[in-house]
Amino acid sequence: MKKVVIISGHPNLKNSVANKAILDEIARLCPQAEIRKIDELYPDCKFDIKAEQAALEKADIIIFQYPTYWCGIPGVLKLYVEQVMEHGWAYGSKGTALKGKAFIASTTMGVLDKAYSAGGVMKHTIEEFSYWIENFAAGTQMDCKKIFSIGGMMYVPGITTDEQKAALIDKAKKQAAEIVECLKAL
Amino acid sequence: MKKVVIISGHPNLKNSVANKAILDEIARLCPQAEIRKIDELYPDCKFDIKAEQAALEKADIIIFQYPTYWCGIPGVLKLYVEQVMEHGWAYGSKGTALKGKAFIASTTMGVLDKAYSAGGVMKHTIEEFSYWIENFAAGTQMDCKKIFSIGGMMYVPGITTDEQKAALIDKAKKQAAEIVECLKAL
Repeated sequence: MKKVVIISGHPNLKNSVANKAILDEIARLCPQAEIRKIDELYPDCKFDIKAEQAALEKADIIIFQYPTYWCGIPGVLKLYVEQVMEHGWAYGSKGTALKGKAFIASTTMGVLDKAYSAGGVMKHTIEEFSYWIENFAAGTQMDCKKIFSIGGMMYVPGITTDEQKAALIDKAKKQAAEIVECLKAL
Repeated sequence: MKKVVIISGHPNLKNSVANKAILDEIARLCPQAEIRKIDELYPDCKFDIKAEQAALEKADIIIFQYPTYWCGIPGVLKLYVEQVMEHGWAYGSKGTALKGKAFIASTTMGVLDKAYSAGGVMKHTIEEFSYWIENFAAGTQMDCKKIFSIGGMMYVPGITTDEQKAALIDKAKKQAAEIVECLKAL
């Protein structure tokens, strides 16, 4: 399989259920994938830009895994994009470091999938809230292969029951398996 | 005039031309507005959540002023939203601290306005990339009055000429004047 680098954009992965389960399952199914947990690597958001660029340069396939907050990517992942994807490296006339790589996004939403629809509380689909990803991929000359999303993944300690938590983890594992199937086909 | 609190989401306002010019002009035209520069207040993104909540509680009108990066708000401003807009304070059944306040967003884009269109390089309008703001306002029970946006505001030291810089500042001042007119009508 091609070299896969996953950027985990959860701001507190140790306390996560869904994102942690997705990443753990990908690690089990695809142990050669490199998972970079930016909250653990850089607890103060002081990214080692050269180290991140070196890791991304080695990848054939880059995956962003993150929870959706306020209809978008977490602030910590946005900061990562702003700082690591430098002009002259990721974009611009001389910025071709990511050119030709495959890109996949995978996100979890706390609310149910149906909330992200014209008639739902979010009024728009998760694809509409992900328009920027198309431009991000185009700007960095990556090929955006797919955006995976899964709703109803909210976990609230003391409120979510053990049975509900187990169901969340099952859904997360299913998303991970779909991602790995996608990777195998690339 | 009602109490206005402006949250500046530029990650490095001292080096900004457009955002700085907008804020300076608002301060000149509307000196009673409180401008909170989160990059200067919190250079390490360690927000004083209680202080920010107290400042926002006093406001009748809240403005977010920020540059658009990768089609969205800066990571530092997204972090601010995630951390300051706590469940039970800004949203949720007991989260009514912002209820009834007016909300305005004002953003600058480096690329020309026409880039943000169906036929432009960004493929979608800035309004489409701002869908989340409607949900943010609805979730916090604020009334989103207007989203101001202005393109072609890129400033590159050593490349942008003095004449071009002066033109950027003029455009920025115009946007500031429009915002202040909007405030007067509220």
